Amino acid sequence: MANKLSTEAYKGTRDFYPQEMAVQRYIFDTWAKTAESFGFERYDASLLEPAELYRSKTSEEIVNEQTYTFTDRGDREVTLRPEMTPTVARMVAGKRRDLTFPVRWYSIPNLFRYERPQRGRLREHWQLNCDMFGADTYVADIEMIALASKVLTSFGASPDMFQIRINDRAWLNKIFKDEGFTSEQGAAMLALLDRKEKITNFSEEAEKIAGKKFTLPESFEVQSHLAQVVTGLAELGITNVVFSPSTVRGFTYYTGVIFEIFDTSKANNRSLLGGGRYDNLTALFGGDAITGIGFGMGDVTMKDFLETHKLIPKNISVTAPTLAIIPMQESFFLDGQKIAEQFRNEGISTFVDISDRKIGKKLATASEAGSAYVLVVGEDEIVSQKFTLKKLATKSEKTGTITELANSLL
Amino acid sequence: MANKLSTEAYKGTRDFYPQEMAVQRYIFDTWAKTAESFGFERYDASLLEPAELYRSKTSEEIVNEQTYTFTDRGDREVTLRPEMTPTVARMVAGKRRDLTFPVRWYSIPNLFRYERPQRGRLREHWQLNCDMFGADTYVADIEMIALASKVLTSFGASPDMFQIRINDRAWLNKIFKDEGFTSEQGAAMLALLDRKEKITNFSEEAEKIAGKKFTLPESFEVQSHLAQVVTGLAELGITNVVFSPSTVRGFTYYTGVIFEIFDTSKANNRSLLGGGRYDNLTALFGGDAITGIGFGMGDVTMKDFLETHKLIPKNISVTAPTLAIIPMQESFFLDGQKIAEQFRNEGISTFVDISDRKIGKKLATASEAGSAYVLVVGEDEIVSQKFTLKKLATKSEKTGTITELANSLL
Repeated sequence: MANKLSTEAYKGTRDFYPQEMAVQRYIFDTWAKTAESFGFERYDASLLEPAELYRSKTSEEIVNEQTYTFTDRGDREVTLRPEMTPTVARMVAGKRRDLTFPVRWYSIPNLFRYERPQRGRLREHWQLNCDMFGADTYVADIEMIALASKVLTSFGASPDMFQIRINDRAWLNKIFKDEGFTSEQGAAMLALLDRKEKITNFSEEAEKIAGKKFTLPESFEVQSHLAQVVTGLAELGITNVVFSPSTVRGFTYYTGVIFEIFDTSKANNRSLLGGGRYDNLTALFGGDAITGIGFGMGDVTMKDFLETHKLIPKNISVTAPTLAIIPMQESFFLDGQKIAEQFRNEGISTFVDISDRKIGKKLATASEAGSAYVLVVGEDEIVSQKFTLKKLATKSEKTGTITELANSLL
Repeated sequence: MANKLSTEAYKGTRDFYPQEMAVQRYIFDTWAKTAESFGFERYDASLLEPAELYRSKTSEEIVNEQTYTFTDRGDREVTLRPEMTPTVARMVAGKRRDLTFPVRWYSIPNLFRYERPQRGRLREHWQLNCDMFGADTYVADIEMIALASKVLTSFGASPDMFQIRINDRAWLNKIFKDEGFTSEQGAAMLALLDRKEKITNFSEEAEKIAGKKFTLPESFEVQSHLAQVVTGLAELGITNVVFSPSTVRGFTYYTGVIFEIFDTSKANNRSLLGGGRYDNLTALFGGDAITGIGFGMGDVTMKDFLETHKLIPKNISVTAPTLAIIPMQESFFLDGQKIAEQFRNEGISTFVDISDRKIGKKLATASEAGSAYVLVVGEDEIVSQKFTLKKLATKSEKTGTITELANSLL
């Protein structure tokens, strides 16, 4: 026999045992419900995409160093998607003639990045992706940021637990143009701004790029697009918004408003959610450009946020079947299955304990798991065809035929 | 600019636009509900696994020719899982000390096989996987087959639409032993039986392997394990079961009962569902062997089955938001968002039509999408703060403040 295999999951990925899976489902269900409350429709796609999809528009760091890319047996270069935006742009472009715009779509894909696992960053994570295509109005920007905010408040978060940072790539580009930057200088300045919080010598580095002293304005103009968005959000009651002139986000495809949400707790210093407007991503596929704005929010940082602020409800656990049927001995196992079938046919989830453990242990397990009722199957019950259903919470009992008991439970 | 990119999905995979996604979610939700009605708990894991996990027990054809396997940047051989059973065995082995057996688990993973796409077979598909670990009784075999049958009847299938074929690997092995076959002869005979329906010269090939005439019995013995299972299923009312001595299933890890479900319609000749008992898969990870029995059912063949038998409900479509808010002009878009927020806070899913189309088109879209109510926002409404809510089904209207209308909808 070969050496024993490891029971560990592949590095940087997670096993979801039923308990963790229950939390994951709670997060996904809340995400889905919130997106649908704004009229977003769910879509999905394969995680395998041609590698070329990421070459032109994703940041270079990601394509060159951080993707899982391999050559398939048909000599095609394939990438495990590192982000969902190129995929959704591909799908919208593919059906542009059949869709009624604006299109509001969401998805909860898993994404892959080859990097060193650390707090809040794994090699595989899931992400809520919400995108709106074909709406140019500033109100679309407001709606997307309002939805992003609602995703957090839907979990019970209060506005003081998170901060929405916004900026405008178009505004940055105009400043760069007014400064007389070449496009290389502009790109270098964006990359530097992206690292601003991680470095101490920003001013020196900025001066090197600009060839002169360079600082960004601390506030936006009253007549600006950003002012409209911030004022509109305030009218919707969303005031935990700050202007963040150095927020640029890594992806090169953003062209307008960009935004990120941060946890206000010191425990989590990563962005919880990020997004922005990209006005030309579908042009990669030919045809007129379709405007878009979207955001992504990861499950790992989401769970860290919920745990930090104690927002995961205590009663989230594996859903126990409503009824546990406990045969007294092995010769009644099949009778247990027959009885279970009758309850299931009435819509009552039912499990049969076919283990060889003692009755006391079986009853304890049913109670711990959270089943509401137990029904013991023994010699007397089989002979008389009268069974006793016990409600665990109140210890009340009812005796009757299976048909009577199944009906009484409805 | 580079050449235009294709909008096609990667070969053998599918894009799920909202309409297809609605059908996919219907299938997944029905699967989940059925498994949970038997007390199965949901788990999940990454689709990336070490390649070695599939080397020892999956059929050789799959590992050598049909997997997506590549070397990661850390020089590890990684496989996109072609099946879920090795993963669930790994997870059970990893927590064997913490679990209460029997364990009933289910999952709906996506699986990858590198093969030529054809009807019912794609490179990526999803599969309902149900497994029970730690129950040796024949009643566990009955429960698993009853659950498999219930998965189909939960969609409204009647027993005449499908046939359950069962066999027993232990019985086959005993016959091979009685015939004096070497283990190589036994393996060759299993592989031949697996191809029996596809070839015309079975008898000749069987004689070559056995070195003599070889035929399998046409029926099982009255005292056999299979007889117990078939009789038990009949007691549960499941009678569309046939003994199928040449059913062997490809995977080498099966050791006991094996079963497959076939569509009785000629339109679909592939197995819809397949499974069996494996009494030693966790032994690969060390420790005592834990017995198991499980099955998998694919989404592609499931959808073919439902379509063939017209079992997909007509009302499955993208869930439209309950209320469509239609601003008369762009200057009311933000007012529309503010009103929407008030309805959403009352739990009513609401979308704002911020397109620049005409009012008539907007009303038509809301109606076609299936929204129950519309609310038009114009100059008069903004000035008076009185709005009119229209119920599309009855054309009845109600006028009032937003607070009054939001409460009236509950």
